[in-house]
Amino acid sequence: MSLLIVGLGPGAGAGMTAQAREALEAADVIVGYTAYVDLVRKEFPCKELVTTPMRKEVERCRTALGRATQGEEVAMICSGDPGVYGMASLVLELADEYPPVDVEVVPGVTAATAGAALLGAPLTHDFAVISLSDLLTPWDDIERRLRMAARANFVLCLYNPASHKRPHHLRHACDILLEELPASRPCGIARNVGRSKEEARTLTLGELRAFEADMFTTAFVGNASTYVSGNRLVTPRGYLQREA
Amino acid sequence: MSLLIVGLGPGAGAGMTAQAREALEAADVIVGYTAYVDLVRKEFPCKELVTTPMRKEVERCRTALGRATQGEEVAMICSGDPGVYGMASLVLELADEYPPVDVEVVPGVTAATAGAALLGAPLTHDFAVISLSDLLTPWDDIERRLRMAARANFVLCLYNPASHKRPHHLRHACDILLEELPASRPCGIARNVGRSKEEARTLTLGELRAFEADMFTTAFVGNASTYVSGNRLVTPRGYLQREA
Repeated sequence: MSLLIVGLGPGAGAGMTAQAREALEAADVIVGYTAYVDLVRKEFPCKELVTTPMRKEVERCRTALGRATQGEEVAMICSGDPGVYGMASLVLELADEYPPVDVEVVPGVTAATAGAALLGAPLTHDFAVISLSDLLTPWDDIERRLRMAARANFVLCLYNPASHKRPHHLRHACDILLEELPASRPCGIARNVGRSKEEARTLTLGELRAFEADMFTTAFVGNASTYVSGNRLVTPRGYLQREA
Repeated sequence: MSLLIVGLGPGAGAGMTAQAREALEAADVIVGYTAYVDLVRKEFPCKELVTTPMRKEVERCRTALGRATQGEEVAMICSGDPGVYGMASLVLELADEYPPVDVEVVPGVTAATAGAALLGAPLTHDFAVISLSDLLTPWDDIERRLRMAARANFVLCLYNPASHKRPHHLRHACDILLEELPASRPCGIARNVGRSKEEARTLTLGELRAFEADMFTTAFVGNASTYVSGNRLVTPRGYLQREA
């Protein structure tokens, strides 16, 4: 009895690992949020696909664990990596109630590194990953993390910068960062990575404040050394500076 | 004229993406650090493979860029993701000197998420990634980031916790963290992920201080909510807590 929590990587296409593809091929049933199941539907037309809507995360995990207890090989899919704001922890939290099920996490390329690759190399030094969603995290905690990360000169990677119900979170986050960092600080956004309408562009922190992000956007804020070259966002690791 | 900087993921096996594999198959020449080239030698026996030793990073990138200017399709390989302490930024820094070369980064599963998957789900909330190598970064900067990240209740993922020349960095880092966090704080280590002698285990921050890490180890320090269940390290995202 096994449940694999599988990261699709960006867009579930060429960014998927061989291990993830094998897990989906071996599964009797694939469970996931509707939008993610749609990503794999074409490639696995003969699989049983079980979808649950957003905000029904506990139900989705219980469905997957329940099916696994019946002896089926179950794959639960997540966009990107299941361990970065994905279902891995919730499944493991619930798994104690389904003792015979063997749970395994299959990692994937997360939006931080997929978006970074599209922009160039913004994350090539110490970085902090912060979700701007306050559905499960008090905004005060998010604000404190933004401030501390900026003060410690981390590169920042911001997940969930906005949604229909939270259109102003990115602006609020930038207002906090602008108390610590210059408005000229190089930043970047990546959107729909690995999907149609894929987009990446550089901008300043001041411009990021006004950017209309959506739930398919990942935002990057450079550290003090990050610079823009052409359309690329680059954070030096320090090799050239050492030799200079 | 193109140079692809390709992330092999953990161990260059089943954790590699289809996009990375295609890039290596299409390359005329594969350039990399000796240990990483050895990982792909078996699978691509007919390719020209160019290796350079550690600490020769600038030379390695110039070799790759130079070969690309000669019209060859060049793939430079990095373990994990090329944008996380990899060669992506150095290549882009140097690329201005080789204007005709089109540089592209092919992301891979980085040690943070590959190690996390093996441990369970330690990174399923905001996290900070910090390298403990002070070859290119002043130790004072590393120390400040450790302290700020602990104070802001980030999960921590520590790259390069030790090497032959820096055997005590993990202990020094834990000493700083222990000023901010309890010795009982759940932690984890992952070693040789995706390779032979793969290993993952949970331990406390007090125990992590004494752990003999090597350069193939990634260390994880939980946030205030992280707990150990069986042999798993789990950081709740908050779904169950919201419903409780």
